[in-house]
Amino acid sequence: MIVEMRTGASQDAIDAVVDRARSLGLDIQLNQGTDKTVVALLGSNTGQLPTDTFAVLPEVESVTRIMKPYKLASREFRETDSIVSIDDIEIGGKRVVVMAGPCAVESQEQLMEAARAVQGAGASILRGGAFKPRTSPFSFQGLEAEGLELLAAARENLGMPVITEVVDPGDVDLVAASADILQVGSRNMQNFALLTNAGRSRRPVVLKRGFSCTITEWLTAADYLLAGGNNQVILCERGIRTFEDSTRFSLDIGAIPVVKKYSHLPVIVDPSHAAGHYSLVPAIARAAVAAGADGLLIEVHPNPKEALVDGLQSLTPSDFSRLMTELRAIAESIGRYI
Amino acid sequence: MIVEMRTGASQDAIDAVVDRARSLGLDIQLNQGTDKTVVALLGSNTGQLPTDTFAVLPEVESVTRIMKPYKLASREFRETDSIVSIDDIEIGGKRVVVMAGPCAVESQEQLMEAARAVQGAGASILRGGAFKPRTSPFSFQGLEAEGLELLAAARENLGMPVITEVVDPGDVDLVAASADILQVGSRNMQNFALLTNAGRSRRPVVLKRGFSCTITEWLTAADYLLAGGNNQVILCERGIRTFEDSTRFSLDIGAIPVVKKYSHLPVIVDPSHAAGHYSLVPAIARAAVAAGADGLLIEVHPNPKEALVDGLQSLTPSDFSRLMTELRAIAESIGRYI
Amino acid sequence: MIVEMRTGASQDAIDAVVDRARSLGLDIQLNQGTDKTVVALLGSNTGQLPTDTFAVLPEVESVTRIMKPYKLASREFRETDSIVSIDDIEIGGKRVVVMAGPCAVESQEQLMEAARAVQGAGASILRGGAFKPRTSPFSFQGLEAEGLELLAAARENLGMPVITEVVDPGDVDLVAASADILQVGSRNMQNFALLTNAGRSRRPVVLKRGFSCTITEWLTAADYLLAGGNNQVILCERGIRTFEDSTRFSLDIGAIPVVKKYSHLPVIVDPSHAAGHYSLVPAIARAAVAAGADGLLIEVHPNPKEALVDGLQSLTPSDFSRLMTELRAIAESIGRYI
Amino acid sequence: MIVEMRTGASQDAIDAVVDRARSLGLDIQLNQGTDKTVVALLGSNTGQLPTDTFAVLPEVESVTRIMKPYKLASREFRETDSIVSIDDIEIGGKRVVVMAGPCAVESQEQLMEAARAVQGAGASILRGGAFKPRTSPFSFQGLEAEGLELLAAARENLGMPVITEVVDPGDVDLVAASADILQVGSRNMQNFALLTNAGRSRRPVVLKRGFSCTITEWLTAADYLLAGGNNQVILCERGIRTFEDSTRFSLDIGAIPVVKKYSHLPVIVDPSHAAGHYSLVPAIARAAVAAGADGLLIEVHPNPKEALVDGLQSLTPSDFSRLMTELRAIAESIGRYI
Repeated sequence: MIVEMRTGASQDAIDAVVDRARSLGLDIQLNQGTDKTVVALLGSNTGQLPTDTFAVLPEVESVTRIMKPYKLASREFRETDSIVSIDDIEIGGKRVVVMAGPCAVESQEQLMEAARAVQGAGASILRGGAFKPRTSPFSFQGLEAEGLELLAAARENLGMPVITEVVDPGDVDLVAASADILQVGSRNMQNFALLTNAGRSRRPVVLKRGFSCTITEWLTAADYLLAGGNNQVILCERGIRTFEDSTRFSLDIGAIPVVKKYSHLPVIVDPSHAAGHYSLVPAIARAAVAAGADGLLIEVHPNPKEALVDGLQSLTPSDFSRLMTELRAIAESIGRYI
Repeated sequence: MIVEMRTGASQDAIDAVVDRARSLGLDIQLNQGTDKTVVALLGSNTGQLPTDTFAVLPEVESVTRIMKPYKLASREFRETDSIVSIDDIEIGGKRVVVMAGPCAVESQEQLMEAARAVQGAGASILRGGAFKPRTSPFSFQGLEAEGLELLAAARENLGMPVITEVVDPGDVDLVAASADILQVGSRNMQNFALLTNAGRSRRPVVLKRGFSCTITEWLTAADYLLAGGNNQVILCERGIRTFEDSTRFSLDIGAIPVVKKYSHLPVIVDPSHAAGHYSLVPAIARAAVAAGADGLLIEVHPNPKEALVDGLQSLTPSDFSRLMTELRAIAESIGRYI
Repeated sequence: MIVEMRTGASQDAIDAVVDRARSLGLDIQLNQGTDKTVVALLGSNTGQLPTDTFAVLPEVESVTRIMKPYKLASREFRETDSIVSIDDIEIGGKRVVVMAGPCAVESQEQLMEAARAVQGAGASILRGGAFKPRTSPFSFQGLEAEGLELLAAARENLGMPVITEVVDPGDVDLVAASADILQVGSRNMQNFALLTNAGRSRRPVVLKRGFSCTITEWLTAADYLLAGGNNQVILCERGIRTFEDSTRFSLDIGAIPVVKKYSHLPVIVDPSHAAGHYSLVPAIARAAVAAGADGLLIEVHPNPKEALVDGLQSLTPSDFSRLMTELRAIAESIGRYI
Repeated sequence: MIVEMRTGASQDAIDAVVDRARSLGLDIQLNQGTDKTVVALLGSNTGQLPTDTFAVLPEVESVTRIMKPYKLASREFRETDSIVSIDDIEIGGKRVVVMAGPCAVESQEQLMEAARAVQGAGASILRGGAFKPRTSPFSFQGLEAEGLELLAAARENLGMPVITEVVDPGDVDLVAASADILQVGSRNMQNFALLTNAGRSRRPVVLKRGFSCTITEWLTAADYLLAGGNNQVILCERGIRTFEDSTRFSLDIGAIPVVKKYSHLPVIVDPSHAAGHYSLVPAIARAAVAAGADGLLIEVHPNPKEALVDGLQSLTPSDFSRLMTELRAIAESIGRYI
């Protein structure tokens, strides 16, 4: 942590910074330049220390954090890539894992039709929402417990692991009983009560990036899961909110190499929520694979025109099948496979 | 809702839109221009209908919503300003209500010292956090139940209503037992499980704006509370996330007149979280009152240098007292009082 | 254009809208719903009509534009893809055209070394800045006229077309005399004096997207060039400004399919300015090709450590050569070539 | 400048950083922590040194700038507030200076009617655009030279100084001949050719903030003007681009105290462009005065319904007159006057 004093700061003010740092067990290096005095604070826990500790002291101009605020999710904590295994499917290895299915589970027929289609086209994990976080109280909220049962039945029937979202901290155990992977949605990335409970679960967790959270905040949220003892964490980039309105969100393609650089966790991409329109999904999905994503989470609906939720961004089974062919070629061109 | 067909759309595609609209009980007005066909769909519930219903149909270029997606929070639903009463304090009337106190309750001494100071300077409601939503699992998480007890004791002792945050849907009743006002934090504005439970509570709720949510989404979140039967809803603007980094968030001052235009709910401002630095709080607080805010939520700490949370943005009691004098003058200049 | 009247709007107010529209020669379709009256205005020029024309009238709630504000750049104006030719290089066809070279021309040695390296690795066009738009007046501003001469010499020497930036409207002819392609930088996308002059030039223009401009504004800026008679316009996505700070800008990968959907113009990607760090450039470049970009603009410096401008985001010749191998494989996997 | 080495950086890499710093005449302080080595570089010119100089060196993790990149605009360069005088009007003193008039000069009648109205209501400077930077080539571009003549005539007639925008670097002298204050618009804040020419002019310059530029970039742009020898620089906050779409831009009210803290330059506010709708202008204008703005730039049109540009955000003379009464009361409540 670097504390910059105001120009012409008094010796008393400088001493106060040094004293506070010493009381916290930090090493100090004092740099008295011609214009400015700068105090460098060194120690292994400065990443977790709030900058305010020093910023509130008199005649301090600014405090800059050098160490990242996350710890367990960092590459410095674990150098080699983490791999999360669901049955025999490894996420974070050479395979690019495709999870696909409808945004919301609507009925047994709809779910099974979608599941068979995505499995046939090469997806390895079935997605489907039972609890839906909807922005309006007047919208369809999901089939809830009944949806979980339909997912469990589909898994049984097709031998395909399922991923579904959990929105209430009190529902973690219930959802974990039916699903192979828990999904924490974008709007809940900083729902710390939910993260704490999901961190205690034995199920792998897909942690979607908050649509206005930085990568640093995202990895710090992953620390909540990891600190709870759950090390099966998969990150999912799904687009961030920007001023651009021709897509629903702006997929942050740069997040893929950035996560790979700073973290050991696998990272997948949801092109559907970013695009917001089915016609834009394939290009973003192809880009994600080329950029190095470890998997994709794609919305597929047997009949998008009749979908209760997010039909516009859902691919039809035949569009999905065509996309899978394209993705396989790209994966191979970079030495991976689907 | 306005459905714009692609240039040269076929009659079949146009008919499909019309049929779908009719099946939903909507009135239709067909506009066949030289270049484009546009279908206007009319009916009182189009605000709650997803645009995807029509956007997924073939040869549709775009669908534009005319009605707002929120309903109960709108001025059209209720023309006159709503007033929320806590004891004899009215929020939304002529008085500008100041809520102040420490970010986190740390101890009885700290809370009581802050409470006496803010009451002495003219604040009418005491704020203090017992449950703290912290971005890192390694940060101080609040005194929790013990913090609630300290708040209840302060209320008893000073005859001052208290506001505190609730973060877990399962804690709503617990917090409501100790607090006069429930606060839903920015990171939880779209935590629909929490909103649903807070909507069932009899306590007034301060709904902070999500730091990356539009005003439309904010009012739609308010609809969750209102739809649950709780009509004591107070909105709180606390800054939005932008590219600017010299303040912690960018206070959206325009949100005040916008909310007043489209909604009947009272709106207050939290200048502390937006500013991020005590030296910037007074100017933003003054601006909020001048813009027409119905109240302020300000962090005051008896000793910011020792604060466990957000010390840098906390005012000292004497700074707060000076600010209150300024705010009173501004309130009077626009025909209000504090 | 859709004009929505306020709930309970008077007949006089509705008539005023209708009269104004008629006076502008527009067709009108009046939709009087139970709650709201909506007036649809039809005609081929409504895209170029300001919405204010109607929004200022009494009792108007909102005005929504259906037609896009750009015209010449739209797919509706020209259905087939435009191809821009520089010598025998076609941009917008099956080939993915790579333009590479140093951010700034620093000396003959530096330019020639970079030029030979990028040509050897397969780049077809040489980039290099002579006039540099620098955010600080104390930074290196480019070699200016001397830089143009060095570029012209490199072109002569290696038979490689060159692209360079023009920043002053008065310099368009000067730059066009030395360069094969004029580049309009991100900060100048809405410098309309510059666009007007570049529109009169006979040289192809690469129009970089303003880092905070929407795709709609970008295509409208392209209209300035096209309206001036210059139809050799190439768009370049180079990252937009968002709250994320781990990359210099956030590359908007979704812009590629969006531009392809709404415009006939070719679109290339500059991964260097978006990434801001050489280690992140390859992943973004690969993603751009997979998403369908028609070309890339990449910074390569023979010795990034000694670069006067943007060294951190420049690839070394050997990194560039490795990247070109990867890009070739991806281009082939989607049926294109480099 | 603080250079942080990667964990486990080699001695060679550390030496390379130290050698480079010494070659630039910087003082070095080496901090070898248990986990990380951090090198502090000290010297009075580090603010103007690109961080890339060190960031490109091997095994460097990050480089953090401590000194601000701007110099002449900083409070450290000049401690006391700068005051810009136009005739006997001082901007930056106790008076809050109101500049008002039409967005675009349309005719003599329109301009004179507006000018008389704003002068009558207490505005001291007349605004009016002769050259209009329009996003579409098909929109009205201003009366240009004829508009300048009308402005000069109005000044003569009413004894009121005028402010108008200059958009082409080649037009600076022409505009300076007719106008008392040159305005550099938001889209030109980083048009360095224009800034350089305006910096050579003897006229005061209002520098509008780029709608996606940070305050640091804004003050660095002011350095261009100041470095050219023109020290009559007035900053103007006019709203930044965010995700919020209920206002045209989001006025960054926090920018007022931030500019006052870091710079000696006066700062005014344009509430009209931020609001985008006349009904929202008064609240934002009041907030600006309360926050400490030194002036306002407001659009007033005798007949907004007939305005050729930005009618929706223009106040009528009677609305403006009412607002002036409110603003006077607020100015007085904070010890200033209009």
